[in-house]
Amino acid sequence: MTLSLSAAKSHRQPWLGLIEEYREYLPVSEKTPVVTLQEGNTPLIPVPALAERIGRQVCVFVKYDGLNPTGSFKDRGMTMAISKAKEAGAKAVICASTGNTSAAAAAYARRGGMSAFVLIPDGYVALGKLAQALLYGAEVLAIKGNFDQALEIVREMAISYPVTLVNSVNPYRLEGQKTGAFEIVDVLGNAPDWLCIPVGNAGNITAYWMGFCQYHQAGKCDRLPRMMGFQAAGAAPLISGQPIAHPETLATAIRIGNPASWEKAIAVKSASMGNFHAVTDEEILDAYRLLASEEGIFCEPASAASVAGMLQVKDQIPTGATVVCVLTGNGLKDPDTAIKHNESKFQVGIAPELKAVAEAMGF
Amino acid sequence: MTLSLSAAKSHRQPWLGLIEEYREYLPVSEKTPVVTLQEGNTPLIPVPALAERIGRQVCVFVKYDGLNPTGSFKDRGMTMAISKAKEAGAKAVICASTGNTSAAAAAYARRGGMSAFVLIPDGYVALGKLAQALLYGAEVLAIKGNFDQALEIVREMAISYPVTLVNSVNPYRLEGQKTGAFEIVDVLGNAPDWLCIPVGNAGNITAYWMGFCQYHQAGKCDRLPRMMGFQAAGAAPLISGQPIAHPETLATAIRIGNPASWEKAIAVKSASMGNFHAVTDEEILDAYRLLASEEGIFCEPASAASVAGMLQVKDQIPTGATVVCVLTGNGLKDPDTAIKHNESKFQVGIAPELKAVAEAMGF
Repeated sequence: MTLSLSAAKSHRQPWLGLIEEYREYLPVSEKTPVVTLQEGNTPLIPVPALAERIGRQVCVFVKYDGLNPTGSFKDRGMTMAISKAKEAGAKAVICASTGNTSAAAAAYARRGGMSAFVLIPDGYVALGKLAQALLYGAEVLAIKGNFDQALEIVREMAISYPVTLVNSVNPYRLEGQKTGAFEIVDVLGNAPDWLCIPVGNAGNITAYWMGFCQYHQAGKCDRLPRMMGFQAAGAAPLISGQPIAHPETLATAIRIGNPASWEKAIAVKSASMGNFHAVTDEEILDAYRLLASEEGIFCEPASAASVAGMLQVKDQIPTGATVVCVLTGNGLKDPDTAIKHNESKFQVGIAPELKAVAEAMGF
Repeated sequence: MTLSLSAAKSHRQPWLGLIEEYREYLPVSEKTPVVTLQEGNTPLIPVPALAERIGRQVCVFVKYDGLNPTGSFKDRGMTMAISKAKEAGAKAVICASTGNTSAAAAAYARRGGMSAFVLIPDGYVALGKLAQALLYGAEVLAIKGNFDQALEIVREMAISYPVTLVNSVNPYRLEGQKTGAFEIVDVLGNAPDWLCIPVGNAGNITAYWMGFCQYHQAGKCDRLPRMMGFQAAGAAPLISGQPIAHPETLATAIRIGNPASWEKAIAVKSASMGNFHAVTDEEILDAYRLLASEEGIFCEPASAASVAGMLQVKDQIPTGATVVCVLTGNGLKDPDTAIKHNESKFQVGIAPELKAVAEAMGF
């Protein structure tokens, strides 16, 4: 194609994915083959109905990372992990995951021309959770064991065989994820006063803090946010101070009893003078419904933990502060929860006549 | 919040939604209250594995409109329709829809502080298709009748009661949808040689053509694409030349027997010197799997009709041409098809040992 018109006529530069956008902040070189689906650049949406519940001129935004290409923030880490795997000559990647990680790993690996293997515990996972990974062409292997055994085996596989591990222990994952903080600062012109974020494995809160700190060092912002982490009450080891053997919450994406980035998350809390709190499943569902029915934003239940947490501690938010809540995944990942927990009116058996319909509508 | 740092430090202007971005091309004024979720600005992704199947230096991109806020291109039209409804003082909107339209209508109406009503035929619709509309807070009304009756009643409701119709007859819908063409030109620097697009109700192909023509008039591009429309073989009235009483295809989003924009679509075909073709469900599924497993892109089955069609007529694409295929919806809208029609390997019952897993992986 001949690009015959001047680029100046086009009013904005296209977004080429977060590696190209933030290259100088990432461990890539000109030799790195960039495997991208143009992830990142997700909307930072004002949520006035939430702000109204707080009052006192507090401004609230949500960072809607469910609009990444595979539907979650995992794409940020995966473009980095897969590009670096390809640079190192990998032909296959592996992870143990039943959800967002397996979808992202499969999509980026296949786009990069690699095989993707996903290890899961036998009988544990609803097939619907694997719809994406399977369609993206991952090979799924179910072992007669539990999730911890699956994790152990993928680690060993990556040591003994030519296959790259892309679970959260892969260091490039957090490098990619930190760009969420860059994007927030790029839009707001500075860091927010508070960042509210769901905490499961604690990798994302660690990555965001790294992003804010690096941008601060680069002079892109002149302050740092308080990092407010929220765990589901049934899976809140960072609040109770000890691992949870059998974590329970409907927010499956943060149903983790022993977070991989435990120590790092505690350091983030201290350094940022932030705090961690537990939110109940009921609080999570309330926030989930509120986001959808008043703001028009459909997120995964786990994502709503950030909003639930903010509302729980809203009286501690300084007057006039700017707060960003991170929504990590797309609500379309979990239609069952939407069907089961909506509070909308659904009337059936209405006569197919104008008057009957008008009456049903309350006219 | 005090935006104390200069905006110049931020390296790109934030995207504020398509009304703000393309205000001069849209029927809005300063009095129009903009109801937005920052829709638009969706990725235009190179798809080299598809291009390779064509060869001859043809460049192929997909416009991945499934990354709009509610997961489909319908958001482009709905930000316009709802903003104009709000400007006119509407307190409620209504549509007859079982899929993407109802989701978009509900999200934008609720964000705009209005009620949303969705009319459907009793017993016809799988509950999963309504997950979004219900969570967004729409009231769903099922009538003892068929879809045509539902459409007729919502039209009458909008005439006789204070409720605004946001089905595709709403003229603002196409105005919003045309911005997809603007975005493509803004990224490529010109119009593509071919635009491949799924055709159901034929509104989107009409809107895209309007967008390319307006941008051409404004000097933003110096050529116009051939508009290549693709219908599902079991629902191809524009190819057979007559309405289909009982359209059948697994691509539900284009399962339409009597397109609302029939005449307009025919005019677009003629003016652009384009063409319309039918693609079978098998061709659609092949393209759907290919997009996911080689390019890492998960779309609705109906979206894959554009790619299936391009591959069907690939020998007609000029050497060195640039082709854009529109992917109208997110694959997460329809997980069942992904589960049912993937061709991935899924092994169960593997012993939880390194050696057994390695063997299952082919080492």
